[in-house]
Amino acid sequence: MRTGSTPGEILSDEVVLEAVAAEAGWMEDLLVRLVEVPTTLGNEEPGQEIMENAFGDCGLKPRSVHLNADALRNAEGASPFSWDVDGKRNVVAGWPAGGSSGRSLILNGHVDVVPPAARELWTNPPFRAVREGDWIYGRGAGDMKAGLAAMTGAVRALIGAGYAPAADVELQSVVEEECTGHGALQCLLDRARTDACVITEPHPDHLTVAQVGVLWFHVELSGVPAHAARASQLGFNAIEAAVEVLAALRRHEARLNENPPPYDTFEHPINLNPGVISGGDWPSTVAASCTLSCRIGLYPGQDPQEARAGVETAIAEAVAASPRLAENPPRVRYDGFSCEGSVVGEGEPLVQILSGAYEKLHGERPPALATTATTDARHFVRRGIPAVCFGPRGEQIHGIDERVSLRSVVESAQVLGLFIRDWCGLVPGRKEES
Amino acid sequence: MRTGSTPGEILSDEVVLEAVAAEAGWMEDLLVRLVEVPTTLGNEEPGQEIMENAFGDCGLKPRSVHLNADALRNAEGASPFSWDVDGKRNVVAGWPAGGSSGRSLILNGHVDVVPPAARELWTNPPFRAVREGDWIYGRGAGDMKAGLAAMTGAVRALIGAGYAPAADVELQSVVEEECTGHGALQCLLDRARTDACVITEPHPDHLTVAQVGVLWFHVELSGVPAHAARASQLGFNAIEAAVEVLAALRRHEARLNENPPPYDTFEHPINLNPGVISGGDWPSTVAASCTLSCRIGLYPGQDPQEARAGVETAIAEAVAASPRLAENPPRVRYDGFSCEGSVVGEGEPLVQILSGAYEKLHGERPPALATTATTDARHFVRRGIPAVCFGPRGEQIHGIDERVSLRSVVESAQVLGLFIRDWCGLVPGRKEES
Repeated sequence: MRTGSTPGEILSDEVVLEAVAAEAGWMEDLLVRLVEVPTTLGNEEPGQEIMENAFGDCGLKPRSVHLNADALRNAEGASPFSWDVDGKRNVVAGWPAGGSSGRSLILNGHVDVVPPAARELWTNPPFRAVREGDWIYGRGAGDMKAGLAAMTGAVRALIGAGYAPAADVELQSVVEEECTGHGALQCLLDRARTDACVITEPHPDHLTVAQVGVLWFHVELSGVPAHAARASQLGFNAIEAAVEVLAALRRHEARLNENPPPYDTFEHPINLNPGVISGGDWPSTVAASCTLSCRIGLYPGQDPQEARAGVETAIAEAVAASPRLAENPPRVRYDGFSCEGSVVGEGEPLVQILSGAYEKLHGERPPALATTATTDARHFVRRGIPAVCFGPRGEQIHGIDERVSLRSVVESAQVLGLFIRDWCGLVPGRKEES
Repeated sequence: MRTGSTPGEILSDEVVLEAVAAEAGWMEDLLVRLVEVPTTLGNEEPGQEIMENAFGDCGLKPRSVHLNADALRNAEGASPFSWDVDGKRNVVAGWPAGGSSGRSLILNGHVDVVPPAARELWTNPPFRAVREGDWIYGRGAGDMKAGLAAMTGAVRALIGAGYAPAADVELQSVVEEECTGHGALQCLLDRARTDACVITEPHPDHLTVAQVGVLWFHVELSGVPAHAARASQLGFNAIEAAVEVLAALRRHEARLNENPPPYDTFEHPINLNPGVISGGDWPSTVAASCTLSCRIGLYPGQDPQEARAGVETAIAEAVAASPRLAENPPRVRYDGFSCEGSVVGEGEPLVQILSGAYEKLHGERPPALATTATTDARHFVRRGIPAVCFGPRGEQIHGIDERVSLRSVVESAQVLGLFIRDWCGLVPGRKEES
């Protein structure tokens, strides 16, 4: 099936596919360099320097979009954050329109990665990009440095072939996707409008058109410290308090999963995760304090405030059941994700044309799926910009021995190349030096 | 009632009591200076410098007894330890015998303190020695810097009165009482023998003649990290693993408390304390690892190896009940206390004569009690040296707003002064300059 309105289809499928495939080595090199900088929260800049150079190496003119804490805190869709964002930047590069007949596009990826979970469990050090067969291993290889490499490689190939888009394209390498999405949000505060966005998250063989919201919350438990020798008479242990609260939160999670109409293909769409715990300061002292940091999903359409209320009600149930908790009431702190879900209709031209580009390479249209995670897509959707995720095949995302398929990097870049041609249109441009 | 065999009772009760009371200001000053140095594990030296000067100020010649890791690891009664003890020292001061008719004595106190549990819960900063009425507040004020001040003040008063003991007395300011007891153990490796030991722990209005053993154990839990979005399908959370193991350990604790013959005055003699927990590295990542550090008591007569077996059996029960725990088996690490309990007979001359000294001040004999904690007394008892605890009135030991009664410091020093006279005997000595 041909997708109808593809302005300026002046490069054949074969030429696009070959031009992108020719960038395989360049993309692998970029991916390896990105994986080898540990761009965890607060340490993103070495990755942005690599992306800045990569954009420049394509003949684009990268610029910085600095995070502005005050602007972010006042923005619609912002999440609370306690850490310093001064000096942090997104790196964006416009690929200017060579005509005025097409549809504009943002290609977006995040350079930040989650911590390695447990270094000692990795086969190789998590920030050494080790290649084995078709796989590159490393924290962030899949989520989502491969996506950054693929989207940049696709644009590089078309520039190298001597073409420009028929409407503006912008490439965005953003920060803080893994905690707030404020990198993408700052880009939107910086730039008004585009016709569509593709985020090259590691969602292979399907397009992601719907996602949950996510709430991070931190439960601060207080105990009554005492000598362990008299723990049962004098003390109340904050670690035990955390255990009681966690049990109540698990009951809350179970109720949320009982009735998942928009997510009925998932057996367990709403996941509560007690991700970090820290409590006490001495084995022989009853723990005085404990912090339990959790993540829970929200169905699309649910307001983050409603999710907060649900968490607080669950904790109140634990308090009602425990006189000692009532004497030492837990406090809930919100820091990081506090965001809604989002849905893009499957009939959107973006979905149809990206599916068509996929079909040209793979011979079948990809399914349009929902995810139980969040992505930066919500920031675009909230502003009326259709945004979907599609990208290379990553495995063990947030897990041990995370890896990405190099073949899938090239193939997703090829699909993106066809999609840019079909969505934006291409016009002959000045052939860039490379 | 008079205690029979008191060699060389040449100072009246009143003279001893007045001489010690005259040192109240000196003892308070020493206590304040000790509280204001935060002598937590690894930071004991500033406290030892103060004690070295205090011993010197009494006319004694302090010397250092350095911790020797190899000697300690090979010593009977040692506990495992993973940290560096190089350069750490006890400070001891002999008060040489002026005759040969008496019984020798060690007065022992520890300079190390536990961490403040939760600084933000304290009314005043935990290492600022604030006086309110009769109380000095601060971490370690009761446990047991007041005891160090009292024992040194008692000796200072008798020296100042112009007397020497009829058998050797040694004052010991030791380190690491709160984690291994290796300071006291090193002193015993250094010095062969004494007739008795009094440890001036904050055990007021009674003598402590029996204590439990203590085992520290650290349970290392492994999870299967994954993205929180797919936690229920892909992940196994190490924090949840810790919760399962803790429940099994609580069942073990309950069984231990069902049948407490030697401790039948206690409703709950054996206390399990999950003192420290740390797990996970990101709210949206299923926790890959979690460490739960616990303390549990042992009845006197129980071997630490038996206590380890009990803990390991309890954890094995949790594993047997949980296929996911079985796939990710917990590991138990022993670091810190691994020690037996100890008991001194109430008929021991040490107990009788110290009780008699107490009666002379307070008009009644103190009860001889057991404690559900451990103290350095066990190291002496293991070597056949009777050792009991007696000292000032501390409150909120290991808790918030720990404090000690200044009046009780003076009174316990007075009892110690009478006890030294009655146990060791006193002979006229060269009056020291002060």
